[in-house]
Amino acid sequence: MQVLKLGGSVITFKDKDMTADHEGIRRLSDEIKAAWPLPLVLVHGGGSFGHPVAKKYRLTEGYKSERQVAGFARTHRAMHELNSIVVDALLEKGVPAISISPSSFILTEEGRIRSINLEVIGRLVVRGILPVLFGDVVIDRSKGFTILSGDQLAVRLAIDMGAERLIFGVDVDGVYTSNPKLVPEARIIRELPLEQLVGYIKIGEALTTDVTGGMLGKVSEAREAVEAGVEVLIANATSSDVILKALRGEPVTGTILKR
Amino acid sequence: MQVLKLGGSVITFKDKDMTADHEGIRRLSDEIKAAWPLPLVLVHGGGSFGHPVAKKYRLTEGYKSERQVAGFARTHRAMHELNSIVVDALLEKGVPAISISPSSFILTEEGRIRSINLEVIGRLVVRGILPVLFGDVVIDRSKGFTILSGDQLAVRLAIDMGAERLIFGVDVDGVYTSNPKLVPEARIIRELPLEQLVGYIKIGEALTTDVTGGMLGKVSEAREAVEAGVEVLIANATSSDVILKALRGEPVTGTILKR
Repeated sequence: MQVLKLGGSVITFKDKDMTADHEGIRRLSDEIKAAWPLPLVLVHGGGSFGHPVAKKYRLTEGYKSERQVAGFARTHRAMHELNSIVVDALLEKGVPAISISPSSFILTEEGRIRSINLEVIGRLVVRGILPVLFGDVVIDRSKGFTILSGDQLAVRLAIDMGAERLIFGVDVDGVYTSNPKLVPEARIIRELPLEQLVGYIKIGEALTTDVTGGMLGKVSEAREAVEAGVEVLIANATSSDVILKALRGEPVTGTILKR
Repeated sequence: MQVLKLGGSVITFKDKDMTADHEGIRRLSDEIKAAWPLPLVLVHGGGSFGHPVAKKYRLTEGYKSERQVAGFARTHRAMHELNSIVVDALLEKGVPAISISPSSFILTEEGRIRSINLEVIGRLVVRGILPVLFGDVVIDRSKGFTILSGDQLAVRLAIDMGAERLIFGVDVDGVYTSNPKLVPEARIIRELPLEQLVGYIKIGEALTTDVTGGMLGKVSEAREAVEAGVEVLIANATSSDVILKALRGEPVTGTILKR
């Protein structure tokens, strides 16, 4: 079984509120269809759907005032809107996809997943159906509620379902030696074994700005999956056929994190 | 706490595929808003959204062929479309409503709910958020999958969450002595104590046609709630302010089922 996480920046235009990249979503649906059938769980990020409203109501801080309650409801609604666009594109291509709402069954504590029942998802996969989850607002036992990132969710699903591989589809070619958007000499790290990965996280955390171009959080989350024996691939989902090849296990440009 | 079930015939036009009664939904959202805040869980039926596609793919029979897999995905999508219309109407009126997908966390066995974790729903209610569930396709441990009716779901929620009252909002004034659409002398039964209710179900089941005008299934489902001590009210949600009054505990025309 594989878990595919598609970043919010891959399926939405991050600088335009509530704007999906329909063309990108259709292309990725084609690639999933070309690899179909296969045992797979799909998770996607929020991009310009979830983040602006979640930020407006400060949902990551947890419950502080009643005013946020409307924000909780609206953030889920926005995320589900994006999810429907993704599911519809997959259905149109002939992939039997079904939306699975994290907020309907996942609980966190201090922002980390504590309660998750995977029987439904497991049985859907066995039945040849593609569960499509997403970063979502969820009830948090200690903070009231919080934002559950698609990254944390994908890692947890990969570990708990015993996935062989977790693919992060992002908008860059992999993990770079430094931020490729700022440093022209930055080059891709082809393979990052656990030991080096831990060092990478430590260096990243010691610096005040994220020199990795937003990759530090992902790599930190991924660490747990790597420790559990899941191979993690970070690759560019905005390049044609990278996700198709990755799903088929063919070599692609990207960074492999492994034990 | 109360559970309100709104029938599919109340919020959709049953004879027009995929057609919501937007005006009816807005009016009912107004009524819920007028009673808000209150500890409440809302469940709605499928009407012309869920039933046609579920029937086409024979989903109630369980998994028979791969062809149905697309039907499973499409039925959920259709049901969720209706759910989004309901949730959006509530949000617009200022009720912080959130969609909770039964297919994301409920499992059945031979069509009856076996696994349901209510911690999320309970915590949402405490937080002042209105969970909105719906009749849905779900994974069935014995049949592969099945249709979970909004009626069964509402009864189970009312029992397991210890609700004082379960309100069925339907398109008739209550349980009649015979089918009011066929028999002009039919009159409403104001109160149906458990003993008479059991008799009513027995008589109904002994006849080959449903003389109750579709009420038999609902009353049969409701029986379990009545036995558990939940008061059940069946009232006309298509009449103005009936649901508002019912939510406030004010007397309305309808049938009360109690122990």
